[in-house]
Amino acid sequence: MNVEFINPFLVSLINVVSTMATMDLKPGKPQLKNHDLAKGDVSGLIGMVGPKTKGSLSITFEEPLILEIMDRMLGEKHTTINEEVTDLVGEITNMVTGGAKNLLSEKGYEFDMATPAVVSGKNHTISHKSKGKKILMPFSHECGHAYIEICFEDVH
Amino acid sequence: MNVEFINPFLVSLINVVSTMATMDLKPGKPQLKNHDLAKGDVSGLIGMVGPKTKGSLSITFEEPLILEIMDRMLGEKHTTINEEVTDLVGEITNMVTGGAKNLLSEKGYEFDMATPAVVSGKNHTISHKSKGKKILMPFSHECGHAYIEICFEDVH
Repeated sequence: MNVEFINPFLVSLINVVSTMATMDLKPGKPQLKNHDLAKGDVSGLIGMVGPKTKGSLSITFEEPLILEIMDRMLGEKHTTINEEVTDLVGEITNMVTGGAKNLLSEKGYEFDMATPAVVSGKNHTISHKSKGKKILMPFSHECGHAYIEICFEDVH
Repeated sequence: MNVEFINPFLVSLINVVSTMATMDLKPGKPQLKNHDLAKGDVSGLIGMVGPKTKGSLSITFEEPLILEIMDRMLGEKHTTINEEVTDLVGEITNMVTGGAKNLLSEKGYEFDMATPAVVSGKNHTISHKSKGKKILMPFSHECGHAYIEICFEDVH
């Protein structure tokens, strides 16, 4: 998995949060995920299936960051991760994956998206169980951290 | 979503756990999931994409139950949800979804599976964000509970 493949996901999250919530997420260095686990309080997960590849993506947010995004995006102040917040995380997951899908399609990488599921739980971790390399992309903001993880394997 | 569609998932989990761990999970009544959330400590999630449908599935276990399955299936006693346990949950998720896929394929329902991701975190909940109905299937055992949730929507 190369930079050409990673950047569309990174750019899509920054664009979605910048456009919809007028907030700037600062990207850290994408890294191969070994045993480090990104911890967070709410995560959107989505599966992807293409003719040559299949995989999974997660976007994990710390609670203060997603509550700030909720406030700035929808003008709604929530103090806990409720159904409105998980709906937003599901939509962000769809938007980011859809944005990356469009960018990657132009480069000849094709996949279809499943529907997202959203996990709520203090300090949960996610392990992607694909055979391919796992890439972790950290993002920071004064309100907290976010992480994208993607993992693809070749279909034979 | 009808019984014809639900039963293959239910039967597959019972078969996998019975065959591999010689444990009998007792199925409860499948129900439409409204606002009730299944809580658990480790969950396998997988996306599914077909020509006419897409969706997501989760299998959630309470910690004592998955540790007992781990012990009986692999002869390994673990006291916490570590990487070996999440690997097993990922494999069970693949086996159950693959088993259901085969049964459903015979009936004309077709979908491809993404790769699974496994969530660890005490008392987490999962919301499937598909537009279709959400079905919750509870299972019980003296060691604890398990839940399958599936959700599909039509692709237009």
